[in-house]
Amino acid sequence: MVNKQQLTVVKIGGDIVDNDQLLQEFYNHFKKISGPTVLVHGGGNKASALQKELGIEPKKVDGRRITDAATLEVVTMVYAGLLNKKLVAGLQATGKNAIGLSGADGDAIRAHKRSVADVDYGFAGDIDRVNFSFIDELLSGGYTPVFSAITHDGKGQLLNTNADTLAARVATAMSSKYNVQLYYCFTKAGVLEDVENGDSLVERMDSTIYAAMKSAGQIVDGMIPKLDTAFEALSSGVLRVHVGTIQILSDNTQKHTTLCL
Amino acid sequence: MVNKQQLTVVKIGGDIVDNDQLLQEFYNHFKKISGPTVLVHGGGNKASALQKELGIEPKKVDGRRITDAATLEVVTMVYAGLLNKKLVAGLQATGKNAIGLSGADGDAIRAHKRSVADVDYGFAGDIDRVNFSFIDELLSGGYTPVFSAITHDGKGQLLNTNADTLAARVATAMSSKYNVQLYYCFTKAGVLEDVENGDSLVERMDSTIYAAMKSAGQIVDGMIPKLDTAFEALSSGVLRVHVGTIQILSDNTQKHTTLCL
Repeated sequence: MVNKQQLTVVKIGGDIVDNDQLLQEFYNHFKKISGPTVLVHGGGNKASALQKELGIEPKKVDGRRITDAATLEVVTMVYAGLLNKKLVAGLQATGKNAIGLSGADGDAIRAHKRSVADVDYGFAGDIDRVNFSFIDELLSGGYTPVFSAITHDGKGQLLNTNADTLAARVATAMSSKYNVQLYYCFTKAGVLEDVENGDSLVERMDSTIYAAMKSAGQIVDGMIPKLDTAFEALSSGVLRVHVGTIQILSDNTQKHTTLCL
Repeated sequence: MVNKQQLTVVKIGGDIVDNDQLLQEFYNHFKKISGPTVLVHGGGNKASALQKELGIEPKKVDGRRITDAATLEVVTMVYAGLLNKKLVAGLQATGKNAIGLSGADGDAIRAHKRSVADVDYGFAGDIDRVNFSFIDELLSGGYTPVFSAITHDGKGQLLNTNADTLAARVATAMSSKYNVQLYYCFTKAGVLEDVENGDSLVERMDSTIYAAMKSAGQIVDGMIPKLDTAFEALSSGVLRVHVGTIQILSDNTQKHTTLCL
C-alpha cells in the first residue's frame, strides 16, 4: 500500500453543478489537489427542467429516474453534452488538462440495461466493467478524466447510470494500482444524524454505525444507494471515502464525514 | 512523403447523422478504412428542431448560424452530447475504439470568439490552434477521435465552430506527420456542375476550375466555405480532398469529386 501512488476520485452533485458561483469555488479547491484526479459529475436540475420544457413528464421511483427513450436523449444531451463540456472548459481554464468522457468513449465503462423486475427503469445501466487500462493511460498522460454518468453496452446502446455508483466503481477499479481516496461533495457538511440539524454531523462512520442509522430511519432517499456503494468500495480496496462540502478537497481540517469499514 | 503513415480524416454531414439507416451504412464503410482515422461530424437538423421546441428562433446569415447564449447551450447539448455519444457508441459496436471529443477535451482545439464586423455571430469560434500532440497520442494508442464542432477559448468559454473548417484544420495539423486524405461525405455524389442534375458530377476539380465555377454562380451556399477551406488544406499539406457519398470511404472506384491544387 505504501508504495502505491495516490489517486483522488471526486464526485460532485447536481447542487454544485447547477450553481455557477459554487462551481467557480469548486474549481479553486479541485485544482489544489496534488497528484492524479478523476472527476465524476451528477446531473442537477437541468435535465428535469429541459424535460418539462419539452413536455416530457420526469418519472422517478425511490429517487431513481425512469429512463425512457425520450429521457435518454435528454440526459445524454444535458449530462454528456452541456454539463460535461462546461466542466471541461472550466477546468481547462484553471490549467487542469481535463478530458470529458461518457462510458462509451474509449470503451471506458460498459453496462447492461437493468433487467425488469418490479420496476422497468428503461434505459438505466448497471455497470459491468470499468476499463482500468484506458483510465490509467489518461492519468499517466497527465489528463484529468471527467465522467458524466452515461455508459454504453458495447452494442451501440447508451445507458443512464447512477453517478454515485459510477464514481465508486471507477474508484474501486483504480485501487489495484493506486491508493484511492473517494470524495462525495455536495452542499451539506456530510452525513447528518438529524437531516434537519446541520450541527449533527457524523464525523466518523463505520459500517456498524451506518447499519444502525439506516434501521433508525436516519439515512433516507438518495443517501442510501450512495452510502451502500461507498461501503462496497471500501471493502473492495478503496482506501477512504469522504462525504462533505467542496472545501474538504483542499482543506483537511474541514469537518466532514469519513467512512471506514 | 513516401515514408509518412496514412491518415484518413472523414467529415460527415448532418444529412447522414440525421438518418439512422444511412448511419448504419456509414459505420460499415468507415470500419473498412485501414490505418488511423479521425471522424468529424456536423450537426443535422436536431439542433434547429430542439431550438424550435424550446421557442428559440434559429438565426442564420449566409448559411452560418448565429450563436447566442441559448443557442450555444442547444448546440453543445446536441452536437457534443447527443450526436457525439450516439456516434461513439455506434462505432464502438463495430469494433472501432472511438473517443468523442469537443475542442475543450484534452485542449484539442482552441478558438477565439469571432470579432464583430458586419455581423455579430455571437459565440462562434474561429480556430487558432489544433493540438497535434494530443490527437497524435490518441491515434498512436489505437483510438479513433470523433470530433463535434464545439471548441473552447482556454478561458472557460465554449464556442460553436464550423464542422467543415474544423475537419480541414485537423487534417492540416496532422499532415506534418501523416499523409492525410480528407473526405467530405454527404448524400450527394460530389460537386455538381448543375445542382439540379445529379449526373453533372465534376470528377476532378483544381483551383482554376473552382474559381471559374464560383464566378459562374455554380457553387453556392455552404459549398463555398467548405471548398474554400478544402483548397486551403490542400495548399497547407493535406494530400488529397474527396467530396462524395459515404460509399467512397470503402470503394475507390466510386465516382466522386477529387480536389487538387
